[in-house]
Amino acid sequence: MELIDAMNWRYAAKKMTGQRVSPEKIDTILEAIRLSASSVGLQPYTVLVIDNHELKGKIHEQACPQPQIVEGSHVLVFASWTGLGTTQVDEYIKLIADTRGVTVESLTPFADSIRGNLLSRTVEERDNWAARQAYIALGTAMVAAATEQVDATPMEGFNAESLDALLDLPAKGLHSVALLAVGYRDAEKDFLASAPKVRRARKDLFIELA
Amino acid sequence: MELIDAMNWRYAAKKMTGQRVSPEKIDTILEAIRLSASSVGLQPYTVLVIDNHELKGKIHEQACPQPQIVEGSHVLVFASWTGLGTTQVDEYIKLIADTRGVTVESLTPFADSIRGNLLSRTVEERDNWAARQAYIALGTAMVAAATEQVDATPMEGFNAESLDALLDLPAKGLHSVALLAVGYRDAEKDFLASAPKVRRARKDLFIELA
Repeated sequence: MELIDAMNWRYAAKKMTGQRVSPEKIDTILEAIRLSASSVGLQPYTVLVIDNHELKGKIHEQACPQPQIVEGSHVLVFASWTGLGTTQVDEYIKLIADTRGVTVESLTPFADSIRGNLLSRTVEERDNWAARQAYIALGTAMVAAATEQVDATPMEGFNAESLDALLDLPAKGLHSVALLAVGYRDAEKDFLASAPKVRRARKDLFIELA
Repeated sequence: MELIDAMNWRYAAKKMTGQRVSPEKIDTILEAIRLSASSVGLQPYTVLVIDNHELKGKIHEQACPQPQIVEGSHVLVFASWTGLGTTQVDEYIKLIADTRGVTVESLTPFADSIRGNLLSRTVEERDNWAARQAYIALGTAMVAAATEQVDATPMEGFNAESLDALLDLPAKGLHSVALLAVGYRDAEKDFLASAPKVRRARKDLFIELA
């Protein structure tokens, strides 16, 4: 589906049907996330892909009472990296070297610039930065889902502490920042399915300086 | 262009040719931004669209020395709202009422839930939340540019204070959080144009719980 048509079609479905999303469509959404832009390319997040009835039930019960958690097909948990430091930068530099067939040493200036930039920030600033990067991927995932005609409802209003505990995220150096319930809208039960999309007009959203 | 192909094609061009991007393609990118998903639909940001040679020169000189600022066709400044409070929520509720032909009163429960949620946060938390929403739009813009075969280089490493002052953003209740230089890659001068894309493998980026 064309991008703008897809974006007009999408909305955050409040009720879903339970219909499963095909593995092919899930693959496309995950690949779009994987290819998402990320500052200096670091991708400082991990995405949990939950396709397990029991686990979705626990998330619904313990961390997020919104019905799409159990009515959707898959739940994606965008978890940003906590405690971002030299270890993650070193691993990333090694990945670049391996991918591009260059030496780690040749990447020293780039590595130093990332380290210098990151390590000059407080832990809280690094966590916020990592979360923002995850939101780029979240935005990309929603566009990808829409072009596949799959509904995707983003959620921030969940109990992150409970969800982190349930998924054992702190031990993995992760913290959940957003959820995405992926599935199919229940157009009969969700009055928003047919409601006009509300967005600021171009003149109100943009300041054009020509 | 198909989404995944477009995302494989895109990268953050380090050198651009100066070629102009057509108004039609700019319109598509702006419309994608306008339709971006946003928590509770609030869109707590404004995007400055800069297509002025002199102003781009000043940004380059005073706030962001990266060459794409002047080598690109347009510069988009994603500026999130500061001092988010009841005024912006009231305006948004009025927009919903106007768009959907319902009364403001009928939206009181929704308005109260947004106000309660926002106002329970510190000013810093609200600013961070607004910035994250802007990053969803930033992610969407990059995908839209790619599907139009337009290059788009995101930038965080600029002097936000200088840029805000130059564009008079504080007086507008805005704070710049990201730039996007939109234009065309200079494949001859930019060695990254032909370098393999570096992204974590699926097994490293995702935790699949089936």
